[in-house]
Amino acid sequence: MKFTTYLREGAPRLAVVDGTDLIDLNDAQPQVPADLRAALRAGIDLQAAASTALSGPCKRQAIASAKLAPLVPEPGKIICLGLNYFDHAKEGGRDKPEYPWFFFRGASSLIAHGDAGVVPSVSTKFDYEAELAVVIGRTVPRHTKQADALPYVFGYSCFNDMSVRDYQKRTPQWTIGKNFDGTGGFGPVLVSADELPPGAVGLKIQGRLNGQVMQDANTSDMIFNVAETIALLADVLTLEPGDVIVMGTPAGVGQARTPPVWMKSGDSFEVEIEGVGTLVNPIANERV
Amino acid sequence: MKFTTYLREGAPRLAVVDGTDLIDLNDAQPQVPADLRAALRAGIDLQAAASTALSGPCKRQAIASAKLAPLVPEPGKIICLGLNYFDHAKEGGRDKPEYPWFFFRGASSLIAHGDAGVVPSVSTKFDYEAELAVVIGRTVPRHTKQADALPYVFGYSCFNDMSVRDYQKRTPQWTIGKNFDGTGGFGPVLVSADELPPGAVGLKIQGRLNGQVMQDANTSDMIFNVAETIALLADVLTLEPGDVIVMGTPAGVGQARTPPVWMKSGDSFEVEIEGVGTLVNPIANERV
Repeated sequence: MKFTTYLREGAPRLAVVDGTDLIDLNDAQPQVPADLRAALRAGIDLQAAASTALSGPCKRQAIASAKLAPLVPEPGKIICLGLNYFDHAKEGGRDKPEYPWFFFRGASSLIAHGDAGVVPSVSTKFDYEAELAVVIGRTVPRHTKQADALPYVFGYSCFNDMSVRDYQKRTPQWTIGKNFDGTGGFGPVLVSADELPPGAVGLKIQGRLNGQVMQDANTSDMIFNVAETIALLADVLTLEPGDVIVMGTPAGVGQARTPPVWMKSGDSFEVEIEGVGTLVNPIANERV
Repeated sequence: MKFTTYLREGAPRLAVVDGTDLIDLNDAQPQVPADLRAALRAGIDLQAAASTALSGPCKRQAIASAKLAPLVPEPGKIICLGLNYFDHAKEGGRDKPEYPWFFFRGASSLIAHGDAGVVPSVSTKFDYEAELAVVIGRTVPRHTKQADALPYVFGYSCFNDMSVRDYQKRTPQWTIGKNFDGTGGFGPVLVSADELPPGAVGLKIQGRLNGQVMQDANTSDMIFNVAETIALLADVLTLEPGDVIVMGTPAGVGQARTPPVWMKSGDSFEVEIEGVGTLVNPIANERV
């Protein structure tokens, strides 16, 4: 099952995908909240609601004609991993980490598929990072073990963890360089976990700048896989419905190239993950 | 004007403080949302609503008999500064930073005044950090200058940025050691900005462990003050109503002592800021 979030009269609405169309789930099944996080928090069986909607005579709208929103517009937490592919750690001159380099994004950094990634006025060092996003479906009990972790995943999507590299490195804390407005591409669809291999392993992941392949890897190359990451987080905090984990990026980022490659206005970046989808974001300068 | 957030039937409710009593603002003024962040987002004039409530025959409840909630139960962003007092940077062997060491907390780490700070089962290195919290009242336009920043502050409160030091230092990213459940004490009240010096400068700030003064400083000792911090953040992101900035801690933390002092079950820690209030959190072990 595939889900997406689109904008209607400026407000995000959860939809189920039917081929090239979407069906507004709240219209089709009024007991389903119009927000994905709220629906997950309410314990709604979204797969069942979507099945009913798909089999009925509900109104369809072409996805191509819809304005999408970030897949989860306002997650409780967006937890990102740095250096989670060995070849990327290596290209940055780092060893394989013994524990994930976790940092958080805020929802104010998120943008939808099709929205412009924004080159900030204060920097030109604007980089891409193709990543797998994990959406948590149910509260994960503290100290859940790796072997028990995957049933808490609702589904997977694509993420572009766009990074302002000089701000990221102004101090040892990367957070600020990962939280510029207009830098967290998230979408276009969520694929429910049952449609993918457990933990979304073995999927090709590519990042393409203006059609040219810049990152080309496989989700099996992650150092910390999805289940282990959830288990490590569950030792620390409560993962809640609608929380998002962004799993880190493979080698090929712009800053590690000679000369470095920075995204600029007029560029377009695509994150494609096999079986999950393709997230496209044009790049534009901040309007000041 | 002083505000607080308390729990009624498990749900957080915004209240105005009247001496030792509180008045439920949504009961008194039904147009005011029961959640502080929602009220700020809606552009409600909370000072006016509170004034009306205070002057009327509204029902009062003793604060001492109320169960408080984190002051903003679910902020959009909780942005924390590391090393923002020179003496604290120095005790950690660091120079004065040239840019704030920003990291984020998630709302799942927050606890109320009176709630137990939780020593996690996976660590004993549980430390305190007395800090000033800033609550943003209105959306801060990008690139707002320092001289124009303070009118966007709704008010100030106390924060205990409790830190799990071994997790904080497992990688260069401090985030995970700052996001354990039950580690972000926030309250008990918010004091509106008009009742304090501009930027809350010149206020005594103390951290006390079991009544013993461990941290003793003045908010004027901050390296980056509130206005400058808002201006630096406005170059990066959009500060939204209900966002929280936690301004860093002065010298005297447990990890910098010889021998180190770690909080343990049965302890109690108080954060007192002159004119703002006193936040008390007992300390208890995680229940596993």
